[in-house]
Amino acid sequence: MDDVDDEVSFRRATQRDVDTVVSLLADDELGRVREQPGDPAYHAAFAETDADPNQLLVVAERAGEVVGTLQLSLLAGLSHLGTKRAQLEAVRVRSDLRGLGIGKRMCEWAISVARQRGAGQIRLTSDRGREDAHRFYERLGFRVTHVGMKMALD
Amino acid sequence: MDDVDDEVSFRRATQRDVDTVVSLLADDELGRVREQPGDPAYHAAFAETDADPNQLLVVAERAGEVVGTLQLSLLAGLSHLGTKRAQLEAVRVRSDLRGLGIGKRMCEWAISVARQRGAGQIRLTSDRGREDAHRFYERLGFRVTHVGMKMALD
Repeated sequence: MDDVDDEVSFRRATQRDVDTVVSLLADDELGRVREQPGDPAYHAAFAETDADPNQLLVVAERAGEVVGTLQLSLLAGLSHLGTKRAQLEAVRVRSDLRGLGIGKRMCEWAISVARQRGAGQIRLTSDRGREDAHRFYERLGFRVTHVGMKMALD
Repeated sequence: MDDVDDEVSFRRATQRDVDTVVSLLADDELGRVREQPGDPAYHAAFAETDADPNQLLVVAERAGEVVGTLQLSLLAGLSHLGTKRAQLEAVRVRSDLRGLGIGKRMCEWAISVARQRGAGQIRLTSDRGREDAHRFYERLGFRVTHVGMKMALD
């Protein structure tokens, strides 16, 4: 168990993974209140995500089971000499498997894919209150540089 | 001058706007050091941005002149019941025209486009030190909810 690197593999999520991915999103303090596993909206959202070549929704597997998920987006733009940016979000590890290094392995994988896809920067936002998550990402090399602001649209 | 709403119009940027957009990005304390107007990399980055139907690079015009720019990205995903998110960035108003309400008009336009395109949330990140910008976005209805983290990739 001291090296999960060889045990975890990654693949693009398929429509058949949607329920599992949603259960991972819901298996979390914040996710519990905002997700509704079983809602058909998730399948429509999956189809739209999957159709976008700059969106990569991924599942991590270990011993034939899905143990985590993440989404990596690639964003072209002119800023910073036209640097392509990768954006990491919806990173979740199955709650009974946390603390084993699976999340670290997943993020390192995402960073390597971002590089392969030509990104010169990777970024993420993390809920203000999730200080453990901030430390986790700092250990991976991320630095807090920005504030993240949101507004719900009706 | 008390109402710029009717004076400012918006259109998708074209290859011919690239130099103007770059000059707007560079016309700023942080942009000055990180942009290099005239570099051919911007034209390649424009082509990639423009080819992505979920990226909208926009110029704002007033009296036939480009006075501002912004980029709006649309991101599908499963989180929050499959809510599509809009992301606003690279918002710049020509420095000699700041304080007239053009930036507010541009952001309100971006919010309305995000709604039209089916986004249930709009978000942005703003450099930690830009407190004036945070207040500006708070007045538009944004709330600071997250920290924004980055890492450069070699």
